Amino acid sequence: MKKRVITIGREFGSGGRTIGRQVAEKLGIEFYDRDIIKNIVKETGLKEKYVEHYGEFAPSSDHRFAYSFVDLEDEESSPLKRMWHARTKIIRKFAEETPCVIVGSCADYILRDREDCLRVFLYADEATKEERIREMYGEVLLKEKNRIHDMDVRRGLNYQYFTGQEWGKAQNYDLALNRGSLGIEKCVELIVEAAR
Amino acid sequence: MKKRVITIGREFGSGGRTIGRQVAEKLGIEFYDRDIIKNIVKETGLKEKYVEHYGEFAPSSDHRFAYSFVDLEDEESSPLKRMWHARTKIIRKFAEETPCVIVGSCADYILRDREDCLRVFLYADEATKEERIREMYGEVLLKEKNRIHDMDVRRGLNYQYFTGQEWGKAQNYDLALNRGSLGIEKCVELIVEAAR
Repeated sequence: MKKRVITIGREFGSGGRTIGRQVAEKLGIEFYDRDIIKNIVKETGLKEKYVEHYGEFAPSSDHRFAYSFVDLEDEESSPLKRMWHARTKIIRKFAEETPCVIVGSCADYILRDREDCLRVFLYADEATKEERIREMYGEVLLKEKNRIHDMDVRRGLNYQYFTGQEWGKAQNYDLALNRGSLGIEKCVELIVEAAR
Repeated sequence: MKKRVITIGREFGSGGRTIGRQVAEKLGIEFYDRDIIKNIVKETGLKEKYVEHYGEFAPSSDHRFAYSFVDLEDEESSPLKRMWHARTKIIRKFAEETPCVIVGSCADYILRDREDCLRVFLYADEATKEERIREMYGEVLLKEKNRIHDMDVRRGLNYQYFTGQEWGKAQNYDLALNRGSLGIEKCVELIVEAAR
């Protein structure tokens, strides 16, 4: 295998976790997803809920203004900075130690200097994402107005905040796949093929 | 083959024509590139230079303001409208008649309702594109300041003008590939695999 590490960024409801797990199984390598949050909690002593929230999402639109004053570089003691540094350290360690698939967590950006890293982005049309979310979480989540769109906006803001790059822009990845039109099986196959 | 038609949008210097031709050869299907311009000339009676220019690029920044007043819907006799209608007709005819690869010409947008169409976008980092352009066109083109960037800006404006969509946005395609990091051979392989 030419690529030891595969990072998967994904829109909410595009099946990134399922695809990532299947890719890892096919290649016989590790799969990291929730493990990153657990490791950050252990490393920083921050509450799991906090890490979960700011690890994945930027604050809701009401809080974006306040959020914009937090400076990652200046505040040594800022929990956000501690979380980001722990995340960087853990993801680099994972990539160093063993071939793996890492879902989310800006891993593509954190590992941008590794030539043995394949950076994948998964997206889908609204109908596909809705169907997926109904399947995974039930009707409740879908009923919350604009919930899906809002989740993606938050992921995008979080990514942009920490990396300074645009989330989901094809040019930041090696491979961007439309899981809606291609389907899960074909996406798995193409990622495995790209990594080999 | 599940996908009969493959459209390839591409940044200038990303090797889209070469990759498209190789994909067509591997799948044993037609390859359309310059043929579209020739057919538009025949259909409309417009000058080849005009079709070539406005078929690929939006006007330079100096002319963008004037260009913004041309209305595709209102001016029955506008050469731009005639060109766009001829392009639409020819690309639909190509796709209808025979399995094929079509490079450029907003073909992904024109064929957006066909479920048997695989829409690909190719991009690359600046160094890869420079190398490719040096190889294909020699030093001269590279020496013109900002030429590569300008070509992409023009392609983007042209695409946006005719389609109302953002050029190169992953979500508008089925598959977006970084030809810089993946290389030509791997891109060909992945497109063929996605189409099968």
